[in-house]
Amino acid sequence: MKLNEIIKKIEPLDELAKQNCRKRWDSIAKPLYSLGKLEEVIVQISGITKSHKVKLDKRALVIMCADNGVVEEGVTQVGSEITAIVSENFMDMNSCVCVMAQQAAVDVYPIDIGIMRDTKVPNRKVAYGTKNIRYEPAMTREQAVQAIEVGIETVFELKEKGYHILATGEMGIGNTTTSSAVSSVLLELSPEVVTGKGAGLSDTGLEKKRKVIAEAIELHKPDKNDPIDVLAKVGGFDIAGLAGVYLGAAAAKIPVVMDGFISAAAALAAVGIEPEVIHYIIPSHVSKESGGKRLLDALGKEPFLTCDMCLGEGTGAVALFPLLDMALEVYLKMSTFEEIEIEAYQPL
Amino acid sequence: MKLNEIIKKIEPLDELAKQNCRKRWDSIAKPLYSLGKLEEVIVQISGITKSHKVKLDKRALVIMCADNGVVEEGVTQVGSEITAIVSENFMDMNSCVCVMAQQAAVDVYPIDIGIMRDTKVPNRKVAYGTKNIRYEPAMTREQAVQAIEVGIETVFELKEKGYHILATGEMGIGNTTTSSAVSSVLLELSPEVVTGKGAGLSDTGLEKKRKVIAEAIELHKPDKNDPIDVLAKVGGFDIAGLAGVYLGAAAAKIPVVMDGFISAAAALAAVGIEPEVIHYIIPSHVSKESGGKRLLDALGKEPFLTCDMCLGEGTGAVALFPLLDMALEVYLKMSTFEEIEIEAYQPL
Repeated sequence: MKLNEIIKKIEPLDELAKQNCRKRWDSIAKPLYSLGKLEEVIVQISGITKSHKVKLDKRALVIMCADNGVVEEGVTQVGSEITAIVSENFMDMNSCVCVMAQQAAVDVYPIDIGIMRDTKVPNRKVAYGTKNIRYEPAMTREQAVQAIEVGIETVFELKEKGYHILATGEMGIGNTTTSSAVSSVLLELSPEVVTGKGAGLSDTGLEKKRKVIAEAIELHKPDKNDPIDVLAKVGGFDIAGLAGVYLGAAAAKIPVVMDGFISAAAALAAVGIEPEVIHYIIPSHVSKESGGKRLLDALGKEPFLTCDMCLGEGTGAVALFPLLDMALEVYLKMSTFEEIEIEAYQPL
Repeated sequence: MKLNEIIKKIEPLDELAKQNCRKRWDSIAKPLYSLGKLEEVIVQISGITKSHKVKLDKRALVIMCADNGVVEEGVTQVGSEITAIVSENFMDMNSCVCVMAQQAAVDVYPIDIGIMRDTKVPNRKVAYGTKNIRYEPAMTREQAVQAIEVGIETVFELKEKGYHILATGEMGIGNTTTSSAVSSVLLELSPEVVTGKGAGLSDTGLEKKRKVIAEAIELHKPDKNDPIDVLAKVGGFDIAGLAGVYLGAAAAKIPVVMDGFISAAAALAAVGIEPEVIHYIIPSHVSKESGGKRLLDALGKEPFLTCDMCLGEGTGAVALFPLLDMALEVYLKMSTFEEIEIEAYQPL
């Protein structure tokens, strides 16, 4: 599936479906708007799927797994070999997000979009890891587009399988470095501001990480008005793949729950490519990583969860599903004012 | 059960159990502290229950239901008769919180602690509604203590039934007015600052509500250093009952999940009576009601959920349970570094 053609398929949300959904909420016997964002998200999903008969039974988490050449600069606490190990653990349902996904009845789909060795994870490799952005662009522009298209195709495959809603996650040692670099360029903020300690870096390590990001940006001068250029020069296959998931979700009219920092950096790139994509994205939590809140602000999204999580893998996105289920249960099953014969609350 | 004797039973959390829990978290194959507050809450529960073998299988929501005399001042959008109707709907599992509680496997225990007519809700009435605080104290000091003791006894009954964790909720038309009054006194903030629109008041209604609260406080001069005096003069049976739930939970060493604005006002009163109670309280969401954030700040608690909910009934507290379940699943079932043969992340 070609990126250019997919972009043409992306439309605004369906206003009529949103209105019908809102009408149902307003008939339910409770104070108007009193479930706040839990009401709004069901309205949003109605608009995305063009129907106020919302279904969320079948849900999938897409985990883009890839390695980053920049890890050789010592910007991480552990080595690149961990990417493959943890990614293969997803296949055995043995990771934090898998444990949480089982609780939330979310199916887990890890994708090897660029791990540096062969793995048993489904193979959609663009390459065996990216180049070290301190010296070279992470990837070619063609590779960035290819990674985006892997994301798009994944969405259409899952839609074909009957999934109603998707979530984003990633695994890749070094990907808070690349996400910080992408965020720094797209947000026009210094690496100081958007770069955090990732999975537990020391103060010295953090300083080095910020320096490497600043040098990479200085060297490659990515064009902030061209997100594909940014992804290619200082991004990663995982981020580009996730950007593709958002673009694909918008084209396929399927809602997508966004995880934390890395997923939000990918979302900002996707929205830069096609602004309408923003309406197809459901936020979940605000990451503890410094850039997390700033990315959400730039996207105009407010988190449902403020749990100081910074684990990645899609854990924050998966954590939202039980809340969506509760909202949907009230929406579908709760009595209306008419049914229980109380006078409705009046809109102001 | 006498309040004075219960207070004597309240002890600090068990530090050894907390340490053992922390040790288990640190052995799990994931970056240290990366589940943030979801890790901390399991540590807190270990300290409360004196065991790092945390169980949350059996959980109950206590909903204190009562009427407020101040409703005759026109501070609400609907009349007092709604309290009884909705409270009886809890018995039929037909309310928003019941729908959500079923999703989260939380048993619902409504208690008629002061509804103004006889109901089929289990009867622990202190009186048929409070007096109108604009002219009279809401209740006598003896009644306030009695309501607190209803809360305490409820906790011990539920503990006896084998519940591992409780949550707080309430139903009572007019109870954002009384909660605002209690908050205003205990926080030493003007009614302007802590009073919101409750279940959908107009701007004129809001102005009236603030005026009535200011007048009631001016008339009765509750002593902010004596929370029982505050509850008696400008509170409600529901708030006093919930204060009792927190005190009882601390004495019974059972964790209690606090809902939004009204539950937080009750918590502040309980903590004023015995400061150690604070460690037994688990926050859930931050209410959209203006005083909500201020009460959480005063309690030193940060919310897990920021969903702009303001429905009451315990909906915010119930919404936290699936997250607790996910945290506990990871805590109990996730592999350790040793098991998957990766070197552990090092503490900083």
